Amino acid sequence: MRVLGIDPGSQVTGYGVVETVKSRFECVFYGEIKPSKGASLSVCLMDVYRGIKEAIRRSNPEILVIEDIFYGKNVHSLIKQGHVRGVAVLAGAQEGLAVYEYSPLEIKKAVAGYGFAEKRQVQMMVKNILKLAEIPPPDAADALAAAICHINFLKTEQV
Amino acid sequence: MRVLGIDPGSQVTGYGVVETVKSRFECVFYGEIKPSKGASLSVCLMDVYRGIKEAIRRSNPEILVIEDIFYGKNVHSLIKQGHVRGVAVLAGAQEGLAVYEYSPLEIKKAVAGYGFAEKRQVQMMVKNILKLAEIPPPDAADALAAAICHINFLKTEQV
Repeated sequence: MRVLGIDPGSQVTGYGVVETVKSRFECVFYGEIKPSKGASLSVCLMDVYRGIKEAIRRSNPEILVIEDIFYGKNVHSLIKQGHVRGVAVLAGAQEGLAVYEYSPLEIKKAVAGYGFAEKRQVQMMVKNILKLAEIPPPDAADALAAAICHINFLKTEQV
Repeated sequence: MRVLGIDPGSQVTGYGVVETVKSRFECVFYGEIKPSKGASLSVCLMDVYRGIKEAIRRSNPEILVIEDIFYGKNVHSLIKQGHVRGVAVLAGAQEGLAVYEYSPLEIKKAVAGYGFAEKRQVQMMVKNILKLAEIPPPDAADALAAAICHINFLKTEQV
C-alpha cells in the first residue's frame, strides 16, 4: 500500500509518500512546495496543484491523507490554508485517490506518542520510523507523519 | 471584454459571465453549481472545478472576479468556503484568466448602491442592469454582481 501524506500550509506545503512492505514502513520520497515569496494566490495554488499531481504521477499512491486545519490560528491564515487544502484534495480526488483527514493532534500522537509533541520531535520520530539518512524538513515530516498515522490506524482496525 | 463572476459557497457556487458591448452590459449566461447533498469534500471540489472550467470554455472570458470571504461567518463554514474558493481561483488561473477579488460589501454597493443590500435587492438590480427576462437565483445573481462590480471599477479608473 502506498500513501501520500500532505501537510497543507499557507506558506509551505509538505508531501511525502510512505509504502508498507509487509509490516515495515518505507519512505518513497518527500518534499516541500514553496511558492516564491510575493507570488499571487493564483500562482501559489497552481504551484501546489502541479506539485501534488507530479508527486502522484511519480509514486502512484492509492490513498491521500491530509492534515486537518488547526483552528487555533488566526482567521486569515486559516482561510489561506483552506484554499491550499481545497486544491490539494482536488488534485488527489481527480487522480482517483481515496482521501482521509486527520487532526494535527492525531498525527503527532501517531508518531511521537502524544498530541502536543514539538515539531522537532515529530521530525526525529519520522526519521527513526522510516530509517531516513537525514532529518526531513518540518512540513515534509508532518506530511510523512500523516501517512504513517493513517497506516497505523488501518493496522489497529484490522486487529 | 468578458468577465466571469464567481460567488463561491460552502453549499452552492454561483457563476455568471458578463460582456461589455460599448457601454452596455450583456449577460452571456449564468448558473449555479450544486454538489448533491451528502457528497464528500472530494466530490464537491471536483464538481466546482469542472463547472468553472466548463463555464470558461463555453464563454472564453479574459477575467475572473471572485467574491472575497465574509469574515462574519463561523469558522467551519469559512474554511469550507476557502476550499471552494481555492479550487475556483485555480480553475481560472490555469486557463490564463486574470483574477480579481472584491468584498461582498463592494459588490453589493456596485449594483444596489449600498453595501448592506438584501439578497433580493441584489437579484432585482442584476436583473435590471442586465435586462434579464427572469430574476436570477441568489448565488448566480451575486456572481453576476461581482462581474458588474469589476467592470464598473475599470470604468471609474479610466475616467
